[in-house]
Amino acid sequence: MLSKAKIKFIKSLQVKKYRKQEQCFVVQGAKSVQELLASDFEVTLVLGTADFFRQLNRPVQAETLEVTEKELTDLSEFQTNDSALAVARLKPNDPTQIPPNTFGIVLDDIRDPGNLGTIIRTADWFGITHIIASEETADFYNPKVISATMGSFARVEIYYTNLQHYLSKTSLPVFGAYLDGKDVHKTDFGSGGFILIGNESRGISDALEQFVTNKITIPRYGQAESLNAAIATAVICDNLVRSKK
Amino acid sequence: MLSKAKIKFIKSLQVKKYRKQEQCFVVQGAKSVQELLASDFEVTLVLGTADFFRQLNRPVQAETLEVTEKELTDLSEFQTNDSALAVARLKPNDPTQIPPNTFGIVLDDIRDPGNLGTIIRTADWFGITHIIASEETADFYNPKVISATMGSFARVEIYYTNLQHYLSKTSLPVFGAYLDGKDVHKTDFGSGGFILIGNESRGISDALEQFVTNKITIPRYGQAESLNAAIATAVICDNLVRSKK
Repeated sequence: MLSKAKIKFIKSLQVKKYRKQEQCFVVQGAKSVQELLASDFEVTLVLGTADFFRQLNRPVQAETLEVTEKELTDLSEFQTNDSALAVARLKPNDPTQIPPNTFGIVLDDIRDPGNLGTIIRTADWFGITHIIASEETADFYNPKVISATMGSFARVEIYYTNLQHYLSKTSLPVFGAYLDGKDVHKTDFGSGGFILIGNESRGISDALEQFVTNKITIPRYGQAESLNAAIATAVICDNLVRSKK
Repeated sequence: MLSKAKIKFIKSLQVKKYRKQEQCFVVQGAKSVQELLASDFEVTLVLGTADFFRQLNRPVQAETLEVTEKELTDLSEFQTNDSALAVARLKPNDPTQIPPNTFGIVLDDIRDPGNLGTIIRTADWFGITHIIASEETADFYNPKVISATMGSFARVEIYYTNLQHYLSKTSLPVFGAYLDGKDVHKTDFGSGGFILIGNESRGISDALEQFVTNKITIPRYGQAESLNAAIATAVICDNLVRSKK
């Protein structure tokens, strides 16, 4: 039986202020909870249906509680979550160093949680494990972000920082998408560096342009004015891995 | 001054049943309304602020009404719409023939309006103007779809139909993304055909697999299980235009 205090606590974690205060976040859905349990996150609570726990073939180092589908649905923001939910501790916001000869993705104010989650999922597909985000970027631990990552939140590191400061310290190339850059199909990305993705409305901010060493462009064949930020990230990543083949 | 009847009418168009009944849909935001007015849609009503009409440099063949930002914000589903809103007539769901030597995108139950809108915007970027969608695909005229297209709804045609029936009639190649297909980086797409995109959860349905002439795969370098449907569409389209260069 789920106590009222637990229900209140879990629901409070939908709000960033309480996530910060409690240093905890919520993961919803069987697949995402399984990815969480397989990761290095410190899990504090797992709620699941009898079925979920029966099928779970790993020990859980956390408080566990068997609940009904109805209890889960009532707790969840997403209708589809009817088998598991977990609470885990936030990771410290430690400065990220991308490993040698790899790429990191730098996010300049990606505001939409769905876009951020999709970018994390896409990065994970293309083997990119480090994201550096401006402080105005959506919160990694927002339930909509976690959900849109489809489990990839467990494998991708994010570091929130002042991007001007961060990029001023690197000697690695910084690739940024502009409308007048070099054709991404003809770009040699080299062995490592950063892919800088601009804000959904205004693109890469003027203050960061000075750090872009390589302006690139996704060739356009039609009339759309721009691409969605997550879409642009994916097309650039695909060209990046292709150029390294 | 906006009448109560008009407010009720516009708000009703957020619901598919009423869009069908009235054969009308709503477009929100200055940019989207401008794209609408430049298109071949039949516009019946334009609401805009004094500023919007002052900056609009084209005649409007529809009822126009000057409104305040407050009136627009109250009407709109999206907080950011504070300058224009229009009502236009649905287009008939006419069978689409893709022009010779071009590609069409076929959508097998894309349920999420944001994904559908992003796919339309992406298609428009890559010069693809024809989409054939299963009857279970999200409604093109859903306000969330229109918004996510960022104006591209005005340039891309969509035809809802039974895909088994539609694909059984074509002799053109059908490219479908699977986990065990041919590397999309090494695929020659030829001069025309269809790109089949599967549902967000289950991929391409078993019933449609028989129509896929070319199984393709976006190479994976990390651990995500899959890509978002709109992301996969974009990466395939980029490889398609690249193979035709």
